[in-house]
Amino acid sequence: GYATLDTHREKRTGFPEVIFGEGKTAEHLLGIFERLMHHHKKVLATRVDKQKAAYLLEHLETKYSDETFHYHKDARTFHWVTRDYKEEWKDGFIAVVCAGTSDFPVAEEAAITAEIMGNRVQKMYDIGVAGIHRLLDKVEQIEQANAIIVVAGMEGALASVMGGLVSKPVVAVPTSVGYGASMNGIAALLSMLSSCASGVSVVNIDNGFGAGYYAATLTHT
Amino acid sequence: GYATLDTHREKRTGFPEVIFGEGKTAEHLLGIFERLMHHHKKVLATRVDKQKAAYLLEHLETKYSDETFHYHKDARTFHWVTRDYKEEWKDGFIAVVCAGTSDFPVAEEAAITAEIMGNRVQKMYDIGVAGIHRLLDKVEQIEQANAIIVVAGMEGALASVMGGLVSKPVVAVPTSVGYGASMNGIAALLSMLSSCASGVSVVNIDNGFGAGYYAATLTHT
Amino acid sequence: GYATLDTHREKRTGFPEVIFGEGKTAEHLLGIFERLMHHHKKVLATRVDKQKAAYLLEHLETKYSDETFHYHKDARTFHWVTRDYKEEWKDGFIAVVCAGTSDFPVAEEAAITAEIMGNRVQKMYDIGVAGIHRLLDKVEQIEQANAIIVVAGMEGALASVMGGLVSKPVVAVPTSVGYGASMNGIAALLSMLSSCASGVSVVNIDNGFGAGYYAATLTHT
Amino acid sequence: GYATLDTHREKRTGFPEVIFGEGKTAEHLLGIFERLMHHHKKVLATRVDKQKAAYLLEHLETKYSDETFHYHKDARTFHWVTRDYKEEWKDGFIAVVCAGTSDFPVAEEAAITAEIMGNRVQKMYDIGVAGIHRLLDKVEQIEQANAIIVVAGMEGALASVMGGLVSKPVVAVPTSVGYGASMNGIAALLSMLSSCASGVSVVNIDNGFGAGYYAATLTHT
Amino acid sequence: GYATLDTHREKRTGFPEVIFGEGKTAEHLLGIFERLMHHHKKVLATRVDKQKAAYLLEHLETKYSDETFHYHKDARTFHWVTRDYKEEWKDGFIAVVCAGTSDFPVAEEAAITAEIMGNRVQKMYDIGVAGIHRLLDKVEQIEQANAIIVVAGMEGALASVMGGLVSKPVVAVPTSVGYGASMNGIAALLSMLSSCASGVSVVNIDNGFGAGYYAATLTHT
Amino acid sequence: GYATLDTHREKRTGFPEVIFGEGKTAEHLLGIFERLMHHHKKVLATRVDKQKAAYLLEHLETKYSDETFHYHKDARTFHWVTRDYKEEWKDGFIAVVCAGTSDFPVAEEAAITAEIMGNRVQKMYDIGVAGIHRLLDKVEQIEQANAIIVVAGMEGALASVMGGLVSKPVVAVPTSVGYGASMNGIAALLSMLSSCASGVSVVNIDNGFGAGYYAATLTHT
Amino acid sequence: GYATLDTHREKRTGFPEVIFGEGKTAEHLLGIFERLMHHHKKVLATRVDKQKAAYLLEHLETKYSDETFHYHKDARTFHWVTRDYKEEWKDGFIAVVCAGTSDFPVAEEAAITAEIMGNRVQKMYDIGVAGIHRLLDKVEQIEQANAIIVVAGMEGALASVMGGLVSKPVVAVPTSVGYGASMNGIAALLSMLSSCASGVSVVNIDNGFGAGYYAATLTHT
Amino acid sequence: GYATLDTHREKRTGFPEVIFGEGKTAEHLLGIFERLMHHHKKVLATRVDKQKAAYLLEHLETKYSDETFHYHKDARTFHWVTRDYKEEWKDGFIAVVCAGTSDFPVAEEAAITAEIMGNRVQKMYDIGVAGIHRLLDKVEQIEQANAIIVVAGMEGALASVMGGLVSKPVVAVPTSVGYGASMNGIAALLSMLSSCASGVSVVNIDNGFGAGYYAATLTHT
Ligand SMILES: Nc1ncnc2c1ncn2[C@@H]1O[C@H](COP(=O)(O)O)[C@@H](O)[C@H]1O
Ligand SMILES: Nc1ncnc2c1ncn2[C@@H]1O[C@H](COP(=O)(O)O)[C@@H](O)[C@H]1O
Ligand SMILES: Nc1ncnc2c1ncn2[C@@H]1O[C@H](COP(=O)(O)O)[C@@H](O)[C@H]1O
Ligand SMILES: Nc1ncnc2c1ncn2[C@@H]1O[C@H](COP(=O)(O)O)[C@@H](O)[C@H]1O
Ligand SMILES: [Mg+2]
Ligand SMILES: [Mg+2]
Ligand SMILES: [Mg+2]
Ligand SMILES: [Mg+2]
Ligand SMILES: [Mg+2]
Ligand SMILES: [Mg+2]
Ligand SMILES: [Mg+2]
Ligand SMILES: [Mg+2]
Repeated sequence: GYATLDTHREKRTGFPEVIFGEGKTAEHLLGIFERLMHHHKKVLATRVDKQKAAYLLEHLETKYSDETFHYHKDARTFHWVTRDYKEEWKDGFIAVVCAGTSDFPVAEEAAITAEIMGNRVQKMYDIGVAGIHRLLDKVEQIEQANAIIVVAGMEGALASVMGGLVSKPVVAVPTSVGYGASMNGIAALLSMLSSCASGVSVVNIDNGFGAGYYAATLTHT
Repeated sequence: GYATLDTHREKRTGFPEVIFGEGKTAEHLLGIFERLMHHHKKVLATRVDKQKAAYLLEHLETKYSDETFHYHKDARTFHWVTRDYKEEWKDGFIAVVCAGTSDFPVAEEAAITAEIMGNRVQKMYDIGVAGIHRLLDKVEQIEQANAIIVVAGMEGALASVMGGLVSKPVVAVPTSVGYGASMNGIAALLSMLSSCASGVSVVNIDNGFGAGYYAATLTHT
Repeated sequence: GYATLDTHREKRTGFPEVIFGEGKTAEHLLGIFERLMHHHKKVLATRVDKQKAAYLLEHLETKYSDETFHYHKDARTFHWVTRDYKEEWKDGFIAVVCAGTSDFPVAEEAAITAEIMGNRVQKMYDIGVAGIHRLLDKVEQIEQANAIIVVAGMEGALASVMGGLVSKPVVAVPTSVGYGASMNGIAALLSMLSSCASGVSVVNIDNGFGAGYYAATLTHT
Repeated sequence: GYATLDTHREKRTGFPEVIFGEGKTAEHLLGIFERLMHHHKKVLATRVDKQKAAYLLEHLETKYSDETFHYHKDARTFHWVTRDYKEEWKDGFIAVVCAGTSDFPVAEEAAITAEIMGNRVQKMYDIGVAGIHRLLDKVEQIEQANAIIVVAGMEGALASVMGGLVSKPVVAVPTSVGYGASMNGIAALLSMLSSCASGVSVVNIDNGFGAGYYAATLTHT
Repeated sequence: GYATLDTHREKRTGFPEVIFGEGKTAEHLLGIFERLMHHHKKVLATRVDKQKAAYLLEHLETKYSDETFHYHKDARTFHWVTRDYKEEWKDGFIAVVCAGTSDFPVAEEAAITAEIMGNRVQKMYDIGVAGIHRLLDKVEQIEQANAIIVVAGMEGALASVMGGLVSKPVVAVPTSVGYGASMNGIAALLSMLSSCASGVSVVNIDNGFGAGYYAATLTHT
Repeated sequence: GYATLDTHREKRTGFPEVIFGEGKTAEHLLGIFERLMHHHKKVLATRVDKQKAAYLLEHLETKYSDETFHYHKDARTFHWVTRDYKEEWKDGFIAVVCAGTSDFPVAEEAAITAEIMGNRVQKMYDIGVAGIHRLLDKVEQIEQANAIIVVAGMEGALASVMGGLVSKPVVAVPTSVGYGASMNGIAALLSMLSSCASGVSVVNIDNGFGAGYYAATLTHT
Repeated sequence: GYATLDTHREKRTGFPEVIFGEGKTAEHLLGIFERLMHHHKKVLATRVDKQKAAYLLEHLETKYSDETFHYHKDARTFHWVTRDYKEEWKDGFIAVVCAGTSDFPVAEEAAITAEIMGNRVQKMYDIGVAGIHRLLDKVEQIEQANAIIVVAGMEGALASVMGGLVSKPVVAVPTSVGYGASMNGIAALLSMLSSCASGVSVVNIDNGFGAGYYAATLTHT
Repeated sequence: GYATLDTHREKRTGFPEVIFGEGKTAEHLLGIFERLMHHHKKVLATRVDKQKAAYLLEHLETKYSDETFHYHKDARTFHWVTRDYKEEWKDGFIAVVCAGTSDFPVAEEAAITAEIMGNRVQKMYDIGVAGIHRLLDKVEQIEQANAIIVVAGMEGALASVMGGLVSKPVVAVPTSVGYGASMNGIAALLSMLSSCASGVSVVNIDNGFGAGYYAATLTHT
C-alpha cells in the first residue's frame, strides 16, 4: 500500500504520527487520516490546502457524524480530537511571539500544535525589532513562559534579541516573509542560526508545527 | 574601549557572558577574561586556539596563582571556576551523542559547556547510522536523559533517527566533518532542519557550545 | 527537423531512447513518439503532464487502434509496448523503497521504469526513519533484492540507514518533498551524497526514471 | 603600464582615488602610492598586509624622510597626509558602532577612513543585541550623529535594531565574524539587506572603508 | 490581536510605520491601515496587489468619504494623506535614475516614497550603461541632487558608473529584472555591493521603498 | 518619460537597440517599438509573451498596414523589417546546434537573431551527447561554419565535446531544460564555463538572442 | 571512549568498517586501526595525510613487525592485509577511467579500494572529452567491464558521454579539479546528476573510495 | 600511464593541447611537457606555480640546453617555442583591457596566450569604470582591435560598458579580485553573463588563458 503507519510512535515519542499534508493526494490523505483515527484519540495533519480540507471535511463529516473536525485556513492545519476527550493541560504556558502581522499563519500553526499537545499558549504578535519597545514592554510576561517560540521573517533579528533578554529556551522559526535578499526565509534562517545570543535553537523555515511540537517536548521534562 | 561588558547577563539569562575567542587579539581576549573574572565565579571562552590559550595561561597563572585555568585543546574551550566554588548539580543528566570519532571536538565542546553550567553529562560517541545497532543498543539509556545533544557531520542522519526514537528534546549540532557535497556542514545542517522526525531543533554548524548551553536551559524548566 | 533520433541507442546501451517529455510541445512529443514506435517494440516518455498525455492518447489511439498506451498520472509516464510483446523477466527483483507517502509519484516512476525494462519489482512504501522499526522489519526481505532503490525527500536519511544495513547496491533518489531548508530536494541530495554509509550512489532529484533505469543496468551484470 | 591613475577623481567625487591593496604586488602598490602622492595631499591604501606595509614604509620613509606614513595593523590601512596639511573638520560627528570586539578591525577601518576624510568620529564598540541595554543606554548620544555606521557579524541584528531607534541614516557593514551558517558574513549581509526597519543601507562584507567613505559623503550634503 | 502598532515610530525615526502589504490578509491590512490613520496624517502601505487595493479602496472610500486614497498599480503603493495636509517640501531634490524601462515599477516606488516624505524628485529613467552617453549627458544635473537613487537590474553596472562620476551619496537598488544568471536580482545585488567605485550603498532587491526612505533620511541632515 | 532611446547604438555597435520585452507593460513596449521604427529599418523585441504580442500586432498592423510584423511563439521574438529592405547576406553561415528537442525555443531565438543581423544559418537540432554519433556525423559540416552556437540544457556537455572537435569559435548557451540538480540551467552554465576544451565562450542561460548576436559580431571581423 | 566499533558491518554489508581519516587525531586513528585489525583480515583507512601516515607506520610497523602496511601518498589510502591472506579475485574487471591527469589521485583511490575488495581493475586515464577520440578508441574494451568508474573534474562531461556509449553501469565521481565556476567540484557534480544519458549514478566529489566500493557491490550480484 | 596525449588536437582545433598545471605532480607535468615537445613546435602550460616552474626549468634546461623556456611568475604560464620557429603574425591586434591593477596576472595570462597563438596584442590596463574617462579616452583605439578581452573583478561592470561602446566581440573574464559579496569572482561572473549590453561572451573566473585562446580563434575567421 501507499502508507505504512507508525502506530507505536505515540509510545516512543509521546505523540501520534502527524500527517504531512503536502505532496499527498486527497485520497491518500483521507486514507491515512482515517486509519490514524482508529489508533489514537487525536489526529493532526499539517499543510493541508483548502481543496484537500474540503475533501476531508466532506468525507469525514459524513462518515463520522458525531465527531468534530477543525480546519484553520491560515495555519492550514486539519485536526480531530475524539468527542469525549478531556485535555489534561500541563502547568504553565508557552509564549508564541511573532515579529510582524505577515508571520501570522506560521505563528498560528505553532500555537495550534502546542495546544493540541496539551499546552496553554499566550500569543504576543507583531512585536518585531523595528519598534523594540513593543518587545521590552512584554519581556517580564514572556519570562514567565516554559518556553518561547519566536516567529520572524525578513532578517529574523527578533530571535537574537529575545535570546539576550530571557532565561527560558527560545525556539526560533524563520519565515519566508520578505523578498529579494531574504531569499524565502534563508536570511532569517542563517541569522537565527548565527545568533550572537545563546539559548536559541532553530527549526525549519515556516515550520510552525515543528516549533509547537518542540516546545511541547520541553514542557515534558 | 574595545569592549563593553554585559555584566547583567547572568541576571537576565542565568549565565554570565561567554567570550567568543575567534577574531579577537590575544590582548583583547585576556582583557575581557580578566574583567569578567571580577564580576563572576566562572568564566568561559570558546574557540580559543593554542597560541591564544598559551598567552592566556601565561598571564593568568602568573597573576592569579591561586586559581586554576582549564584549556581543552580539542574542544578549544578555556575556562576558570573560582577556587572555592561548589557546583550545585542539577538532577538527571544530558546525553551527548555523536555519530563518528571525527565529531569528537564538537561533542566535547558541548559536554564541557553543559557541565560548566551545572549538568551531569553522559557521553555516547561514535554511534552513527552506518551501524545503527550501536544506537539501538543505547536508546533506553538515552531516553532517561533530560535532553539529548546529537552531534553529526556528513549527512547528519543521526538527528532524525534519534528524533523518531525518543520523547526527549533533541538538540542537533551539524558538524563540518565531511567533504565535497557535505559543504563544510551545510548538508548536515539542511538535513537536520528538514528532519522527518519531530522533536528536533538545530544550532549552528560546529556549535557544540550553543548546544550545551541550550540543553542546560532546558533543564531549568 | 526538430529531432534527430538516436535509433542505435538500444544496441549500444540495451534500451531505446527514452523521451524527456518536459519542455517539448505536444506536437513534437507526438512526432518523436511515433517515430520511435517504428524502430522499437517499446517506447517510454517521462514527465508527461496531463494535457500532453491527453493529446498523445487522442492521436495515438485513433491511429494505432490495435495498440495499447499507458499513462500513469502520478508518475507522469506514458508508454507503449507492442501488442504481441512477451517480456522476458530477469531473475530476482528490484526493491523500491520510499520514506513517506509524499514520495509516491517518484517511487512509482522508478518502479514503472524498472518493470518496462524487464525487472520484477517489490514495493515497500512509507517506511522512513521517523519510525525506523518499519524499515528494520523489512530488512531481510530487502536484502534479497538485486538492487535497492531508496526514494526519500526532506533530509533523505533513509538512504544512509539502508546503506548501513544491506550488502546490495543502493540507488538513492532524493525527492523535492519538503519545504524551506529542504530546498526543493537539495537537502536530501547533499545528504545522500554525503552518506556515512558506503554502497550508496545517487541520481538527480525526483529522478525516479533514472533510478529505475540504473537498477535495471545492475541486473544485467 | 600596469596602472592608469584617475587623477581627476578628487574633482568629480570629492576625494582622491583610494588604493585597493589586495592582489597587488608590493612593487605595484608602491608605484601607485608614490604617483598619487604627487597629485594629492593625502593618499590612502586599504587592505595592506604586514609584509606590504613593511615594504612601503621602508621605501617611502627613506625617500620622503620629512613625511609621516601611518600603518594600522588591525585595520590594515596605510596612509599619508602631507606634512603641512591642516584638516578642516566638518561639523558634528559620525558614530561608529560595533556589535562585538571581534568586529574591531572593520570598525577601525571605517573610523580611520571617515577621519581622513575630515570627519570627527565617536566610537561605541561591543554593544551588540545579546545585551541590548548596552545599546539603549547610548541611543540618545547616537541620535546626535550625522550618520551612524553599524558594524556587525554573526546575524547582524544590530543594524535593524538601530534602524528602528534613530532618525539618522544607518550605514550597515556586515562582517565575516562568525562560523558555519554565518557563511563568512553572508548571514549578516542578507540580514541587513532584509532589515524590517527602514533607514538602513548596506555596504560589502568587511567593507569598513566603504562605510566610512559613504558616511563622509552624507556629511557633504 | 494580530497587530501591535508602533505609534511612536514617527517620534523616533521621523516617519510613521509603513505597512508591508505582502503576506497579510486584506482584512488585516485594512485593520492596520485604519488604526494608523487615527494616529498620523499620512499612511503608506507598500507591495499591495490589485485585489487588496480594490478591497481597501472599497472599504476606505465608503467610510471616509471626504478623504482621498491613492493606489499606484505599477509601484503597488497605497497611501493616504489627510485632506488638509500641506507638505513642507525640503530644499533641493532627490534624483531617481533607472537603467531600463523594465525597472520602472521599482523606480516609481522609490519616487513615491521620497515624495510622500516631503522631497521633490527628478526622474531620469532608462539611461543604463548599454548606451552610456545617455548617462553622461545628465551627470551635471544629477550632481545637483541631494542624493541619487540608482535602480538597475541585470548586472546593475549603472551604480558603479554613477558612483565614479558624482560626489553625492548613491543609494543603489538592484532589481529582479533579468533572467538566468541574473538570478532574480542577485547578480545586480552582488555587483552593487562589490562596486569598484566608492560612495555607493545598497538596499534590498526591488526595494524602491527602502531607497526612497533612505534618501529622505539623508536630506534630514 | 519611461524610456530614453539609444538611437546611436547602431552607429557604435553595428545594430540598433533590441527591446527586452520582459517586465515591460504592453503600452511601454508598443511605445518603444514604434519610436525605434522611426529611426531604424529593423526592430527586434525579445521575450515577448503571447498577450503582449497580440497587443503589439493589433496596434501596429492597424497603424502601419503596409508593413509586416513577425511573431515567433516558441522563440518569443517579435520583429519588423521595413518593407523594401534588401538584406545583404554575409558570406558563410552560422551553425546553430542544439542538444535536445526541449532546447528548441532557445535555438530558434538564436537562429532568428542571427538571421535578422544578416547571417545565413544552418540548424542541426537534437544531436546531444547521449547519442554522440549524431554529432560526429555532422562535425565536418559544422567545421565549415563561421561560428558555432551550441544550445544545451541538463549538463550542457555538448559544448565541451564540440569545443574539442572544431577550430571555430563556439558560443555556448546553457538552457533551463532539466530539473533538480540542473537548477534551472545553473548546472549547464557552470559546466560550459568549466569546459575542459578551449575555444568555448558562454552567454546567459536561455539567452539565444545573445548567442545569435554574438555570433553575428564574429562574422564582422 | 571516543569510538564504538561496528564489528558486525562485514556480516551485514560484506566489508568491514573503513576508517575516515580526516578530522581524527593521529592517536584516535591508530587506536581504531589497531582495534579493527583484531576483528578483520583487512583494514582500510582513507584520507590519511602524510603526517598521520608516518605516525601510523611508525607505531604499527614496530608493534606488528611481521605485517605489511601500505600507504599511497597520492590516493591518501592506508591499508593492511593480513600476511597470509589469499585474495579470491572476482570474475571480470572494473574499468577506472579518468578525464585528465589531474584526476589521478581520485582515480587511484577508486582503484585501490576496488582491488582491496577483490576486484581486478583496468585503468584508462586521461581520456577526457576535449579529445574524444581517446575515449572512442577504448569503448569496446570498456564495454567488457562489470562496471565503469568515471572520474572527472571541471565540467565532468565524460560521465554523460560514457553513459551514452555503454550498457554497463557507470559510477561517476566528480572531482574538485578546476577553478572558478567549477566551484570545487560542484559544476561536475551537478553535471553528472543532470546527465542526459541514463545509466549513470553519482557519488560525492573526490569520493574515489565510494566509487570503488560501490562498483565492488555491483560485482556481488 | 597517467596521461594519454591528444596529439591530433592541433589538426582538429588549430592549436596543440595546452597543459593544465594545477593538480598535477611536478613529475607528471614534466613528463607531459616533454612528450608534447616531441610532437609540436610550441608547448604551453598554465597555472604552474613557482615550485613546479623551478622543477621544470631545472630538468628541461639541462636536457634541452639549446632551447629556451619561459616562465611568467604573475601569469603563472610556462612555455617553450622551438628555437628556429618564426611566428607568422596574424593581421591586426587583440586588445587586452583590464579594470584595475589587481587584475594584472589574469590580463597577462590572456596576453601571453594570444601572442603565443600568433596574435599581436595591445594592452590597456587599469581603466575600470570607477574613472570611466580612462576608458572613453581609449575607445577609438579599442574599436580597431579584432577582438577585445575585458578582464575585471569586483562587480565586473567594465564588460557591459565596453559592450555598449564597440562593435567588436568582447570576451569577458571575471576575476576573483574583491572580497565579501564579490564571492571570489562570482559577482563579476554573474554580472558579465547578465550584461545589459550585447556582444559580450564570458569565460571562467580568472581564465585569462581561455580568453586569449578564444580571441585567437576569432581572428581565424
Ligand atoms: N509541517 C511539517 N513539517 C515538518 N514535518 C512534518 C510536518 N507535518 C508532519 N511532519 C512529519 O513528517 C513526517 C513525514 O510523514 P509522511 O510523509 O506523512 O509519512 C511525519 O512523521 C511527521 O512527523
Ligand atoms: N525523466 C528523465 N530524467 C532525466 N533524463 C531523462 C528523463 N527522461 C528521458 N531522459 C533522457 O533525456 C535525454 C534527452 O532527450 P531529448 O530531449 O528527448 O532528446 C534522453 O536521451 C533520455 O535518455
Ligand atoms: N577596501 C576597499 N574596498 C572596496 N573598494 C576599495 C577598497 N579600497 C579601494 N577601493 C576602490 O577600489 C578601486 C579599485 O582600484 P585599483 O584596483 O586600485 O585600481 C578604487 O577605485 C577604490 O575606489
Ligand atoms: N516594501 C517594503 N520593504 C521593506 N520593508 C518594508 C516595506 N514596506 C514596509 N516595510 C517595513 O516593514 C516593517 C514590517 O511591518 P509589518 O509586517 O507591517 O508589521 C515595517 O516596520 C516597515 O518599516
Ligand atoms: Mg507590524
Ligand atoms: Mg566510527
Ligand atoms: Mg508516512
Ligand atoms: Mg562583547
Ligand atoms: Mg531601454
Ligand atoms: Mg532527443
Ligand atoms: Mg590530459
Ligand atoms: Mg586602479
